Amino acid sequence: MTYTEIGYEVADGVAVLTLNRPERMNAYTNTMRLETLDAFDRIDADDAVRAVVVTGAGRAFCAGADLSAGGGTFDYEKAKDMFAEDDMLSDGETPRDGGGTVVLRIAACLKPVIAAINGAAVGVGATMTLPMDVRIASENAKFGFVFARRGIVTEAASSWYLPRVVGISQAMEWAMTGRVFSASEALAGRLVSRVVPPEELLPAAIALAREVADNTSAVSVAAIRRLLYAGLSAETPWQAHANDSRLMVEIGSGADAAEGVTSFLEKRPAVFPLTVSRDLPAALPEFPKRRED
Amino acid sequence: MTYTEIGYEVADGVAVLTLNRPERMNAYTNTMRLETLDAFDRIDADDAVRAVVVTGAGRAFCAGADLSAGGGTFDYEKAKDMFAEDDMLSDGETPRDGGGTVVLRIAACLKPVIAAINGAAVGVGATMTLPMDVRIASENAKFGFVFARRGIVTEAASSWYLPRVVGISQAMEWAMTGRVFSASEALAGRLVSRVVPPEELLPAAIALAREVADNTSAVSVAAIRRLLYAGLSAETPWQAHANDSRLMVEIGSGADAAEGVTSFLEKRPAVFPLTVSRDLPAALPEFPKRRED
Amino acid sequence: MTYTEIGYEVADGVAVLTLNRPERMNAYTNTMRLETLDAFDRIDADDAVRAVVVTGAGRAFCAGADLSAGGGTFDYEKAKDMFAEDDMLSDGETPRDGGGTVVLRIAACLKPVIAAINGAAVGVGATMTLPMDVRIASENAKFGFVFARRGIVTEAASSWYLPRVVGISQAMEWAMTGRVFSASEALAGRLVSRVVPPEELLPAAIALAREVADNTSAVSVAAIRRLLYAGLSAETPWQAHANDSRLMVEIGSGADAAEGVTSFLEKRPAVFPLTVSRDLPAALPEFPKRRED
Repeated sequence: MTYTEIGYEVADGVAVLTLNRPERMNAYTNTMRLETLDAFDRIDADDAVRAVVVTGAGRAFCAGADLSAGGGTFDYEKAKDMFAEDDMLSDGETPRDGGGTVVLRIAACLKPVIAAINGAAVGVGATMTLPMDVRIASENAKFGFVFARRGIVTEAASSWYLPRVVGISQAMEWAMTGRVFSASEALAGRLVSRVVPPEELLPAAIALAREVADNTSAVSVAAIRRLLYAGLSAETPWQAHANDSRLMVEIGSGADAAEGVTSFLEKRPAVFPLTVSRDLPAALPEFPKRRED
Repeated sequence: MTYTEIGYEVADGVAVLTLNRPERMNAYTNTMRLETLDAFDRIDADDAVRAVVVTGAGRAFCAGADLSAGGGTFDYEKAKDMFAEDDMLSDGETPRDGGGTVVLRIAACLKPVIAAINGAAVGVGATMTLPMDVRIASENAKFGFVFARRGIVTEAASSWYLPRVVGISQAMEWAMTGRVFSASEALAGRLVSRVVPPEELLPAAIALAREVADNTSAVSVAAIRRLLYAGLSAETPWQAHANDSRLMVEIGSGADAAEGVTSFLEKRPAVFPLTVSRDLPAALPEFPKRRED
Repeated sequence: MTYTEIGYEVADGVAVLTLNRPERMNAYTNTMRLETLDAFDRIDADDAVRAVVVTGAGRAFCAGADLSAGGGTFDYEKAKDMFAEDDMLSDGETPRDGGGTVVLRIAACLKPVIAAINGAAVGVGATMTLPMDVRIASENAKFGFVFARRGIVTEAASSWYLPRVVGISQAMEWAMTGRVFSASEALAGRLVSRVVPPEELLPAAIALAREVADNTSAVSVAAIRRLLYAGLSAETPWQAHANDSRLMVEIGSGADAAEGVTSFLEKRPAVFPLTVSRDLPAALPEFPKRRED
């Protein structure tokens, strides 16, 4: 697939995915959705990618849904850009909201995903960052869960993520007012982990991605990403510990575990032999096991 | 119902519910419980109410259970004021603890609820604020989950809310010591979102309520409130996204979605036509689906 | 059981459990595991213990797994120290990872547990603190969820605890980088509640334990500990409130509830008659109900 609305580059172990409709503030379309889904398949399949940075071209990160269909933008019968006709709920007739298909794809990704939020992240532009593992914001960023001001609802599985990422009270305040807020309010509310000057944003995100790439086992990171999200969904610590134990038994006898301990004892950098494309453990939890929804 | 232990006023889209036994520091009684339940039914039924502020008359918010029954206060056989004889567990013989019936009613409310904590919020006076969406405190407020000092347990569904609102470690520290703590400790522990001088408390709470009332679709806000709490209870993002998608399909074709986008494109304030009393979406999730408990 | 790798002392209602292999930075072994499990059984059985402080001898808290088996350390077929041969998963053939057996034992403890983290807490030395209720760190402490750097995965039920204690984004950042970080980063990320100078660490932890011991009902605290963790695992507030209600009815008619209210009204310290060894309520929730995992 050739991309027309996103950029995709891999360098030094890090993929940078750029939302790329700067003339429209990177407003979200069905084309952008399908290209992003494809890019995450490439990310998972490519062992040269150890971590992912998602950012926006120009002055916005993503200003939300493209509203060129006007008042019918969110009406499935009139304008299908916001829904995923290729991905129905299990009832066979309700299309998934399109933003959510991207979110659930990122959720299942085997590599860490870092949002580098360079400007406005509004509506689906905000909710698509929630399944990313770390969000770093430029001082120029602003945010808005504006759905109540557009007469719609929080979408894209944000009803699962937002209360878990920022807590239910902060989630409710932002969602019920629909207010647009600054990077500093986002930081105080723990939506982002750091706010940096604009010119330091991409370097900071890439440095974090490199911290993963330079020091860790790719298979361990893939397994840990699934494990932590499965743990967040698990009802009891016993259930989570069963996942942990199966993985520890399987992966603990592997070549990366041997190299990880040996290199540490020898005080040298580890060179991990295993790869995500070939060596994923059989005990890897689904993220989290998909239900008939 | 005429209220004797609470005040209830609606102005400019905002209902103010005042716990009103100032001579007893608004200590909680069965009468106060039944009046509060009734008031929340009025709130949900009245389209003129877009958001709710709950506060206390006089110097306390609510000093906890009325202890006038002395050592028998929490003994169901001796003094039934603390239990809900009208609301048994599904075993048919255990009465619900009374504070919890208020909490579960607030949980199901279709309008945002803001606590304006003007003074002592202790025992059930603290736990009753947990299902409210935002808590703002006066500098004069103090808090205590004092149950372990009274020989009883954390009640009113606080075992569900407290670890989710402030995190399990902070919840355990406050509950296991039973300490009474200041507004600033409450802020540091994220129990309240803001601490303001006493004279600014009610204006701040009402301003937040107005931010909802002035800018948003009432139906969107009702749906979002249910959606976020249902999402917090959902096991997986897929499950939550099924809720999101059904609502987006239903509400996205509605008059508020058309007005929300059109008014935004026309750079004018939205005038949302739909009302909670008539136009709730069929896909509205229960909060969260009640189990046979 | 005589302990060789931990210390155990009880004074003034507080048990201090000390990881005690200072010459190996208290590196974790199977012996330490079995002794710790035994100590928590003593803690639960001894009414003279109202709260527990866990700390490390010498300059480390616990530097992680003992790596003396080299590259085979985590290989169950080669070196069984890291797995619990006495505690298999329900499949009957997968051993639980050993650190998790300690974590799940602490989870079920009837007394509050406070970590006094005096130095390095790395690997299982970090994850074993997660089921403790409060973590206080010395300025000398450092932390690392280093599993991805050793070619293994987050273990010891940390996939359940870590995202709940510090949030999923902070959990992912620490786990995917495997970085070792300072006490101040731990505080900013809410892994610890306080950072104090080294000489104030044990006094601060013991003072918090005494705050529990001096003011509260032991039975209330045991019930609240189980209740809050069961609530964190409960799907809905209704389910949690059923637990709350059963306990309130049972414990509310007990001698501690009578003394708690009476002493408060008489403005004197409470003297609670009930004990954990004899008077646990029948409605005490399991923590949380163990599933067939």
